[in-house]
Amino acid sequence: MSEGFSFTLHKTDGTARRGTITTGRGEIRTPAFMPVGTAGTVKGLYPEQVCETGADIILGNVYHLMLRPGPEEVAKLGGLHKFANWPRPILTDSGGFQIMSLAKLRKISEKGAVFQSHIDGRKYELTPERSMEIQRLLGSDIQMQLDECLMYPHTDKDAERAMQLSLRWAERSRQAFGKQPGRGNFGIVQGGVNEKLRRLSAEGLTAIGFEGYAIGGLAVGEGQALMLQTIENTAPHLPTDRPRYLMGVGTPEDILEAVARGVDMFDCVMPTRSGRHGQAFTRFGKINLRNARHADDPRPLDPESPCPALSVYSRAYLHHLIRSGELLGMMLLSWANIAYYQSLMQGIRDAIDRGRFEEFRLATKEQWQRGDISA
Amino acid sequence: MSEGFSFTLHKTDGTARRGTITTGRGEIRTPAFMPVGTAGTVKGLYPEQVCETGADIILGNVYHLMLRPGPEEVAKLGGLHKFANWPRPILTDSGGFQIMSLAKLRKISEKGAVFQSHIDGRKYELTPERSMEIQRLLGSDIQMQLDECLMYPHTDKDAERAMQLSLRWAERSRQAFGKQPGRGNFGIVQGGVNEKLRRLSAEGLTAIGFEGYAIGGLAVGEGQALMLQTIENTAPHLPTDRPRYLMGVGTPEDILEAVARGVDMFDCVMPTRSGRHGQAFTRFGKINLRNARHADDPRPLDPESPCPALSVYSRAYLHHLIRSGELLGMMLLSWANIAYYQSLMQGIRDAIDRGRFEEFRLATKEQWQRGDISA
Ligand SMILES: [Zn+2]
Ligand SMILES: [Zn+2]
Repeated sequence: MSEGFSFTLHKTDGTARRGTITTGRGEIRTPAFMPVGTAGTVKGLYPEQVCETGADIILGNVYHLMLRPGPEEVAKLGGLHKFANWPRPILTDSGGFQIMSLAKLRKISEKGAVFQSHIDGRKYELTPERSMEIQRLLGSDIQMQLDECLMYPHTDKDAERAMQLSLRWAERSRQAFGKQPGRGNFGIVQGGVNEKLRRLSAEGLTAIGFEGYAIGGLAVGEGQALMLQTIENTAPHLPTDRPRYLMGVGTPEDILEAVARGVDMFDCVMPTRSGRHGQAFTRFGKINLRNARHADDPRPLDPESPCPALSVYSRAYLHHLIRSGELLGMMLLSWANIAYYQSLMQGIRDAIDRGRFEEFRLATKEQWQRGDISA
Repeated sequence: MSEGFSFTLHKTDGTARRGTITTGRGEIRTPAFMPVGTAGTVKGLYPEQVCETGADIILGNVYHLMLRPGPEEVAKLGGLHKFANWPRPILTDSGGFQIMSLAKLRKISEKGAVFQSHIDGRKYELTPERSMEIQRLLGSDIQMQLDECLMYPHTDKDAERAMQLSLRWAERSRQAFGKQPGRGNFGIVQGGVNEKLRRLSAEGLTAIGFEGYAIGGLAVGEGQALMLQTIENTAPHLPTDRPRYLMGVGTPEDILEAVARGVDMFDCVMPTRSGRHGQAFTRFGKINLRNARHADDPRPLDPESPCPALSVYSRAYLHHLIRSGELLGMMLLSWANIAYYQSLMQGIRDAIDRGRFEEFRLATKEQWQRGDISA
């Protein structure tokens, strides 16, 4: 363990886990959902709002920040926390996933990745060492190894090659991380949906030894069933005394089911991206505010929520704002969704604390199903 | 005067005036700047933020609200104040200006205007009576007469025809307004940049008698000098015991100069529209945050402002957000600009109260000129 960085597992309930990650910048209650602050901002929210919803940590993207404004520039300005006015912990991904999904003309070699920026076509190189250097310059509290990520479907042969490369990059990343008191470095399990590859990857990373372990390469098109199966095939091979982070996941239901399988950390653009497009996640399931049936509905999304975006504004007003393309519609629904995700995580943590997670899981899904339109 | 609606002139300083408009929904300190909430939202701001900047009143647009969501729908939902979560006074314009600037295939007759929606091409009719009905349905606290607005340049003959038509519409509007305790009805002076037409219009409206008088048809391309000249030609013909509202104006400098000529109320989309495009209005003049010279500037826009958008976030971060097309950049700069406009109005009011308006006017312009880039 890195000095000043630790994970305490308080309680398990079935396979679900309740813990605390301690960093130099504060504690993270797990299971935790990390709002995505791609370019140094959780899209559409003030940092104070993100705080108030109960988020202990946000995520930043190395890929985006290396293109703009640049890690050296952020370091000169005092680091990402100061730049983005976010005092709590930040996890940065390594850039691997975005190179796969966004960059142009990417070329992966043993050394690293060469790619063209999706913004201006400029050419960049990202090695495991440079990724760690960037994350250190940003001042990230949890720094991810560079990995090679594949879209689904792919052959087992490809999955094995990418997994083995990611394992070698893990070694180099761990080396480059060095000693950073109060900060942690996470390895990333790859191996597609192949049980054996996932086990080998998990064991290889554990042998290197990280402050935490991520399950990568999921939510890339394989579907929920295969994703959950892969988590079940992976989690048992990870050390119980380190946090487990399922990257890029997901819907509220994905999160509930992954927590049931022993996952501690999540991130996803879904609450903010869906919010910008008029979709709300609530206790009563998904609500598409673009739909005409909300035009004359005076009810707020959830009168009992402490978040004004859920409890103050009427569905009719939200419908009007979204249909009119107003910024406030995107702002309110992004805020509402982040607030709902955080209240879901609080519910999950409370349920595990009380030894009632399975009950909570069923009741939550039942309430999503029931909805509230006929109310 | 409408019952429960009044204007008190506290003090004059030269031609500048300090007053209070009392409505059924609260007081408006004048000179006042009304942020524009076109479609029931001041673009990019939460209503609480608009309140906190010190805005006593916002403006809503009849044209936009009649197309979407529709005045009857808003009335069913409890009126515009409830719909938009804005408890303070609202002024609604009559639709005339937007029909001229936005609608398609408009046709003006003695009866009123027929036009096609710029959203979906649907055909609408707006008469003076219907405009007043819409404003009553919305629950507006200050309701404007329907007028015919001309772009600049135009012939004196056109200006006279439109002014006379607007005067006849003023009569019909006043009739249609009826008795609405706590609310006021304003007439609109037209007449282009012709001194005699402006006088005739002002006298005609005064003879009808309104709770307030607007100077319309300016800031439509005539330039600042002609605009100020026209205000000087108009204001003396308006009763001193009623508020005077200069529609759609303007820059901070326009406002300062118009206050010096006896104007009490203003509205303009400039602070929010410019904010969305990366331009800030500050004590130190205009600052274009898109400009590369701000990329490594750690200073906030104004460290002494009580508004976090001005005092907390660095110019480097604002530059990054605007260049990245992030919502937060638009949110912060719209907020900063509304806050600056309101602090300018507060400065104006304080200066008139102290009998120091001319000193304030010169010092403010001098500080805009000086800027703060070399600081
Ligand atoms: Zn996701
Ligand atoms: Zn304007």
